[in-house]
Parts: sequence; structure tokens; C-alpha cells
Amino acid sequence: MKKNNSLKIRFFGGVGEVGKNMTAFEYGNDIIVVDAGLSFPTEDMPGVDLLIPDTTYLEENKHKIKGYIVTHGHEDHIGALSYVLKSANAPVFGTRLTLTLIENKLKEHNLSSVSLNAVRAGSTLKLGCFNIEFINVNHSIAGAVALAITTPVGVLFHTGDFKIDYTPVAGEYTDLSRIAEIGKKGVLLMLSESTNVEREGYTVSETVVGETLDKVFNANATKRLIIATFASNVHRLQQILDLAVKYKRKVAFSGRSMVSVVESAKRIGELYVPANLIIDIDKIKNYKPEQILIVSTGTQGEPMSALTRMATGDFNKVTICETDTIIMSSSVIPGNEKMIYNVINNLYKKGADVLYETLEPIHVSGHACQEELKIMLSLIKPKFFIPIHGEYRHLKKHAILANTMGVSENNILIPEIGSTVEVTAKSLKFGENFKAGTRLVDGLEIDGSDSVVLRDRIHISEDGIVVVVVCVDMLSGKIVSTEIIGRGITVGEDTMAEVKSILSKALDGFDLRSDDGRSAKSQIRRSMKNYVFKKTKKNPMILPIIMEV
Amino acid sequence: MKKNNSLKIRFFGGVGEVGKNMTAFEYGNDIIVVDAGLSFPTEDMPGVDLLIPDTTYLEENKHKIKGYIVTHGHEDHIGALSYVLKSANAPVFGTRLTLTLIENKLKEHNLSSVSLNAVRAGSTLKLGCFNIEFINVNHSIAGAVALAITTPVGVLFHTGDFKIDYTPVAGEYTDLSRIAEIGKKGVLLMLSESTNVEREGYTVSETVVGETLDKVFNANATKRLIIATFASNVHRLQQILDLAVKYKRKVAFSGRSMVSVVESAKRIGELYVPANLIIDIDKIKNYKPEQILIVSTGTQGEPMSALTRMATGDFNKVTICETDTIIMSSSVIPGNEKMIYNVINNLYKKGADVLYETLEPIHVSGHACQEELKIMLSLIKPKFFIPIHGEYRHLKKHAILANTMGVSENNILIPEIGSTVEVTAKSLKFGENFKAGTRLVDGLEIDGSDSVVLRDRIHISEDGIVVVVVCVDMLSGKIVSTEIIGRGITVGEDTMAEVKSILSKALDGFDLRSDDGRSAKSQIRRSMKNYVFKKTKKNPMILPIIMEV
Repeated sequence: MKKNNSLKIRFFGGVGEVGKNMTAFEYGNDIIVVDAGLSFPTEDMPGVDLLIPDTTYLEENKHKIKGYIVTHGHEDHIGALSYVLKSANAPVFGTRLTLTLIENKLKEHNLSSVSLNAVRAGSTLKLGCFNIEFINVNHSIAGAVALAITTPVGVLFHTGDFKIDYTPVAGEYTDLSRIAEIGKKGVLLMLSESTNVEREGYTVSETVVGETLDKVFNANATKRLIIATFASNVHRLQQILDLAVKYKRKVAFSGRSMVSVVESAKRIGELYVPANLIIDIDKIKNYKPEQILIVSTGTQGEPMSALTRMATGDFNKVTICETDTIIMSSSVIPGNEKMIYNVINNLYKKGADVLYETLEPIHVSGHACQEELKIMLSLIKPKFFIPIHGEYRHLKKHAILANTMGVSENNILIPEIGSTVEVTAKSLKFGENFKAGTRLVDGLEIDGSDSVVLRDRIHISEDGIVVVVVCVDMLSGKIVSTEIIGRGITVGEDTMAEVKSILSKALDGFDLRSDDGRSAKSQIRRSMKNYVFKKTKKNPMILPIIMEV
Repeated sequence: MKKNNSLKIRFFGGVGEVGKNMTAFEYGNDIIVVDAGLSFPTEDMPGVDLLIPDTTYLEENKHKIKGYIVTHGHEDHIGALSYVLKSANAPVFGTRLTLTLIENKLKEHNLSSVSLNAVRAGSTLKLGCFNIEFINVNHSIAGAVALAITTPVGVLFHTGDFKIDYTPVAGEYTDLSRIAEIGKKGVLLMLSESTNVEREGYTVSETVVGETLDKVFNANATKRLIIATFASNVHRLQQILDLAVKYKRKVAFSGRSMVSVVESAKRIGELYVPANLIIDIDKIKNYKPEQILIVSTGTQGEPMSALTRMATGDFNKVTICETDTIIMSSSVIPGNEKMIYNVINNLYKKGADVLYETLEPIHVSGHACQEELKIMLSLIKPKFFIPIHGEYRHLKKHAILANTMGVSENNILIPEIGSTVEVTAKSLKFGENFKAGTRLVDGLEIDGSDSVVLRDRIHISEDGIVVVVVCVDMLSGKIVSTEIIGRGITVGEDTMAEVKSILSKALDGFDLRSDDGRSAKSQIRRSMKNYVFKKTKKNPMILPIIMEV
């Protein structure tokens, strides 16, 4: 079998979850890339702003790239495009809302030479040897699609992020008829998302949130209402605006991304905003509490968000008091628990009432639960199966689920970031790994993932730093002066005095003018380290600086 | 009304939760302290090991302290005792298991001059003007008690941590009859824990965990079993040992605290360990997988724990493989989600099966849910009510619950850390705040909470540090040499060169030999800061060092 006969699927970086941020499909001289998203840094990456996939492989093969296909407009699927396109430009394809959100990002990055191409669910697109059909699916953002990709080795089905909502707020529900047809004709390989594989049953419909919110509006008729929600959940926003009309409240938006998404969605007709409904946030003082609804970002307790600042009293446009009811119409993204509950505690302390998910069904997931995943497997009936979009525990459980639904165990692979999967009409196997992982976006710099800079920061953040300056006379080689300064570590005065004497002893015998500099520095580190640890049980970074004067 | 007629309740530090770690009751010249626990640092405290309450107030009034009453042996109730006793020694009272666990801690701290006094549930104790009765309650550790404290102003009831388990694994259930009697005679003030106030219904009985684990043992008859659980949950351990006997498995313990708690609990008869059941962990290779049960610590994904090292393959005594089933018989403590799921993902990657709380009911809470809190309120029928042991949102909801149960809104107070509550037979009100908060235990040092050290560490961990050394000739005042070194920040070579020229311009006009030193340093900071931010969008700590040579 010649090597060129196989299709290669490459899984690019992200944190923890494979097949979410970015996946490339390669056959011969053609590459298409599905999604280009970012991840947010974990706690062990202090100061890092964002993580984007390491796209070295794409840069080296950019002449092969026929296009970027984006399944929907969430950050973890579009957020890296602005970076990737700079080094590997190619046309971008997505539905209208997706493209509008991408457009906003490209503007921030001053990227104007990108070809953005709108597609509709139901349409097909030919890129090189690939034929891509877009299929409507429900998700927590409008305009989400699954992909049926006809390739030289067979048909692939990529679910994207999906759930099945038979009563969506707007638009159609997941196109089960078309999916059934595609499955009937035969699908070689399915890649399916795994986020909620641990949850039994079905995901609740978005319209249920509207019903709950209606009850909340009713029960809080005399209160000012503040709803925090994800800006990109346009259908949620639509339900909220409809309720504002019904209960005769004016709406003020708060948060930059909220204002920008509303503007974009309104422009392309994805969001219907009645005339005279919206007021500027500066005008809310002209109305009574029961005439106002504030829609805000800040669902994750982000330190600089409007909601967090309202909670601490640092947001001069909105002062929280007893007449406020705040509704967290959102989920808790793992890792953000403490920040979110801090905001909730502070809102309570100001006398407001707060409704959140543990108390009320005021949010639903955008991802398929077990029964929906089974529907997808039963309609597509793939020969091969790759679970994607989840931590390893999710992928493993999804693999077991697919196996119980009839996919042979040998026909299932669980990829990792950097995996290449080789597919032919008859086989599914791992190929050679490629350079993947994440790049850190940190201020203006973009670093590799194994950053010395980051390790230094973590070291200092845990144990502090001690700077040791030794001035040496260039002529005599004698130490003229020393200075020891610690930051991020508590060292007593007596310790400092002792350190100086230890230091001069340790440097006895070194000619500090010559190449000995390097070994003198190690000697400083060694002697300081032992002593400081004994005194403080801390291992600060020791930074020796030898100055010739 | 004379000031001395009121009882003062002081709420000492902890993180987020009031009335958990430590509370003092003061009347005239008598103080009793209930619990002395520690908290674990949050993410914004890099390098910090532990947090203990700031006990300045107790140190200043140590002649008044008649004793420390400890409700149960969890870290957040006993963990600060070793520190507090050093500066404010007094006799300690608790049930047997509690004292045994305290004893272990005191030994680690080489504290031998502490008077430890065992009490039994049902007994009473007179300390100064206080009469304290100990009442048996169920919790996730044996030997937990509630307190009925008769004071000159009336009877106080302090629930401690509790739940009501009608089918406990060992010992009696929460002494509802005695609680009813106490309530009948009249309780002035109740302080009740609030952890699970957001959960409806009842907490499941500990014996249910045993039943689920029995099914797990049955279903995994051919596998090696590894159970991770909290070392201090002696009743859980008893159920696990009983199952090992039933299913003919030898038990090996892993983790220092596990071994030490088992030893202590066995010694005082709280844990029954049959002969020939326990083997050393080094001996497991002499048995088949199905003959082995390993009981381990590491439920929270702690980096150095045995379970975490097993998951990454760094624990040479246990190698995880396909024949292993790992059971996480524990809850996820908020903030630890990512670490725990990392361990679970790694165990799956090694081919093992993993059971955890979201999938199986293999853990139950130790805290009362809504219906149990209502039982307590209905039996005690207090005049005044103070919700404790919870974040503000929990306390607020518990206050509302008490109000619906008949406690007048004016008779409820929600304290914060540092609050003094003044109680008389007729009134409940806030007194003057006192110096409270937390102290950081960081290596060998104990700092105040508003630590410059900590702020420096966070600053450097997010933006890095730039050390600027300027050597100045003492005679001429001229700059002899400069050096600029960055750590935790990426600065290009050309930037460094430019920085040097900016620096010498900025220092033009300063006499660096004289008192100008301080203002020269600010000048260095100012000029560097602007330039570095422009170049990197980062605000590193600038550390200027001026050396006179």
C-alpha cells in the first residue's frame, strides 16, 4: 500500500481536550483545517493571557492548505484564527454569525487580507479533493454546523459541538433527516464530541430557560433585574429581550463583548431588537428599578468584568442594593468556582438577591448528553470512530459507548494532541506524531510551551528571589562591595549579615575577573541555597550578578 | 446596662467561611475557645503552605483563657492548635479520637507542655463561668460533638459540624432526645453550621456507601482494587476493611497520614482491624491482583500524594495497569477540580478503570442538608440565631431558613471574620470589631495577612522582574557600570541595548552618592516602566540596586 493512499488527521493543541481547538485533514497535497480556537491558561501559567495551538506543521505546509472550516463562533473554535492566519493564510468558511464574530477578531488584530466566505447549512463546498457538506446542529450559539466530508478514502462525519433541541428558540433543530441519509449511504469514520458523555438522558431545551426566566420576571416584579449571561448565546439573549418587552422593562447592556455581539447579531438578523427597547447604561437612573433590566457579561467572575466590579462596589454606573435581583444565566466553567462564588457572596453582602444554577434551572448546556450521543451513533453507524472534544476520561467513556452501540473495539482510536491518525477505506491507525502543543500568548510575545520564562515565574511566585550583587575591582580582583536583596521572601536582618560572611567565604579562591565568573556564580548559588533553605525552609531563586568596576 | 453583663462572641479567621476555624466566647474574665483550625491557601497565595487564624486578641488576653474545646478532629478545626498553643497555652478538651489526632500534630511541633483532656459525649465540664455539655452528633469523622454552653446570660447551642445519620456505621446517631430536652428548657442562642443549606432533603447515610462499595467489590472480583479516601473518615475505613475481609483481600495502606490515622484509631479502639489483614505495601507483589486492596490518600489530586504519583507512573511501589480499578471514595473540594481530573485522566490512560462521585454514589457528605437543619431548628427553638460555617451565600440562606422556622428577623445576625457579637438575655447585636483575619504559614515564617512578600510574588509571577544594577564611583559620582537582568519576562537583545541608553539619560543630573539614592531609584523605575510596557505590554517589577564602589 502506498503511503499517499491514506488520509491523515492531525490533532492540534489545546489544554486537556483533544479535537476541540483545531484539527487538520490531509490527503496528498490538500489540507483542510477544521476550527482554530484558543484555550485559557491554567493556574500554573501565571501572567499568560491565552493559549493557541502550535501550528508549526501548518506553517511548513501552508501551500497545501485549501481552507479553514469553522463549525461555530465560540472562542475555543475561532479564537486562534487571527494568529494562525498571520503565518498560514487561506480562505475561511463558516456560517454568517460565525463569520461576523471572526470579523470582529480580525479587526482587533488589523488583519484585512483574509478571505471570509459565508456558507449555509445544507450547502456543500469543494476544497481540493475534499467535498464538505454543512449540516445544521443545535448548540449554545446560533449558526453551528456539523460536517460531512467526502474524501478519497470515504465519507467522514464531524459532529462539531452539538445537542438536539427539538424546540429551539429560533431556526431549525439538528437536521436528523439529512444525518440519517448520510449515515444510510455509509460513513467511514465519525468524529463526535464528548463533553457531556458522563451525563445520562437528554440536554434540556433552551426554551425551558425562557420559561424559568419568565417565572423569575414575574416573581421579581418590583425589583431591578440584572442578568449575567454568555454574550455569544444569541438565542438566550433573544429570550431575555422578549421577556423585557413582555414585562415592559428597558434593557441596558454592560460589558464590551456584550455590546459588540449584540451589534453584530442584530446587523445580520440573528437577533431581533425592537425599537426603543435599548437604553444606554448611563440612563438607567432615569427609570425606576422595576423598569430596568441590565444584561451583563462576567458570568465567570472575571476580575475586570462589570459584574465583578458591581459586586465590590467599583462600578460607578450601577450600584447594587436591596432592590436588585441578579440572575446568573450561565454555567460554572471548571476552575472558576471560587471567583464566581466570591462575586455571589459580595452581591449578597450588598443586600441583593442572587439566583444561580445550583438553585434554579436558569441555564442549560449546549452539548449532547448520553441519549443524544447514541442517536448520532445510531444514525451515522460509522465503521470507524474517534471520540473528540473532552478530557481523556470523557473520550474513554465515549469509546465504550460507541462500542456498546456496535462499533468494533479495534475500529476506535483515542487520539492525543500531536497524534496523526491514518485512515484508509479499510484501516484506522496511528501514524507518526507531529509537533503540536500550545503556544503562550503573554503580552505581545508568543512563546513555545516549555517556557523558561514561565518556569522562572512559578519558581519565584512560590519561593521568592534573592539577588546577590558582587562588585569586583578589575585590577586587584578583590570584592569591593556586595549587596543582597530579597523579594517575595522574608529574610531576617541577622540572616542577611550571616549571608554576607558566608558569601565572602564561598568566593574565597575564585578570580572573579576571569572566566571563573560562571563557576563563581554557581558557587554563590550553592552556598546561598543551602543556607537560605536551612533558615527559611524556602528555595528562592538565587540570582548572582558580578559587576566588574 | 453595664458592659460586663453581655457575653461576647468573637469570630476568628479562616478563608471565606466564618465560625469554622475558631470562635471565642468571653464573659467577664473568662474566655473559652471553640476549635482552632487551619485553612488551605487560595490560588492568589503562591508558595503559602497554610493559613491560621490571627490570634493577636487571644495572646493579649491569654490570662483569661480557661480552655480550648474542640468539636471534632478535622484539620479545619484542629490544625491551628499547635500554633495557637505556643503563644496562648491553656488546657484542651475533646473526645478521644479528636485528642489522638491533636496529639499527633503536637508531636510534629515538639509541643509537650500541653494539657489534653478527654471528654465523652453526655458529660459536662465547668470552665470559669461556663458549663459545657458535650452532645453526640454524626459527621464524616468519629467522635464529633455539639456543645450546649450554659453562660451567665443563658444557654447557647453550638451544633459543630453535624448531620443526622439514623444508621451510622458505628456508635450512636445524633442525640436528638437530649437536643430536644435542651431545646425544651430554653436556648437563648443557637450557632448552626450551614455547609449544605443549598441542598434539599437529607444527607445519605454512611452505610449506603458501604452497600455501593460492596457492589463494586462484587463487580470487580478479578481486579486489583485501589480506594482513595479521606484518612480521618474512620467509619469509611471500617466499612472498607470489613469488605476486604468479606472478599478475602489483603489490605495495604499508602500515604503517611493514612498509616498514622489508622494506627491511632486502632489504638483507641475506634477502628477494628482483624489480625493478618494488613500487609506492607512492599509485599503486594506476592499476591494476585484479586487478592489485594490498596487504601490510599490523595483524593484531591495533591501533587506529592501516592495516588497522583501512581497516575503518572512515579510511584515505584504500585504500577497501574489494566487489572486495576480505582475508586475515588471522596468529594471534590472546590478549587481542586483540575488536579483531581488530571489524576483520573492519567489513570485511564494507563488502562485502569476509575469510579468517581459523578458516576457512582461512593461518597456521602458529612454535613446536614435542609431538612436536617430544620430538625435542629425545630428542636432547639432558639430565641437568637447565628448561622456559621459557610460562605456568605450559605449564611444568608440559613438565616432565611431560620426566619421561615419562626426566628424573628431581628434576632438573627450574620457575622464576618473579626466580628464581635454581644449577647444578653434580651439582646443580640454587633460590638466593636477586633483584630482578626489570617496569618500565612510560609516555610518557617508566619506573616500577617496583608503581606508585601505575597504581593511581590504575585506581581513577579504575572509580569516578571527586571533587576537594574548601577555601580557609581564614590569619588566622582559617575556611573562606572550598569547591568540589567530580567527573569520571568522575555525582553529582546535590542530592547536591552535601548534600555541602557534610556537609563543613563534618566539618571543625568542625579548625584547618586548622596541621599538622592531614593529619588534616583524612583527615576529608574519610572523610566524603565514606561519603556518596558510599550515594548512588551508587561509591567514587570523593576528592582533598582545602586552600588557605591
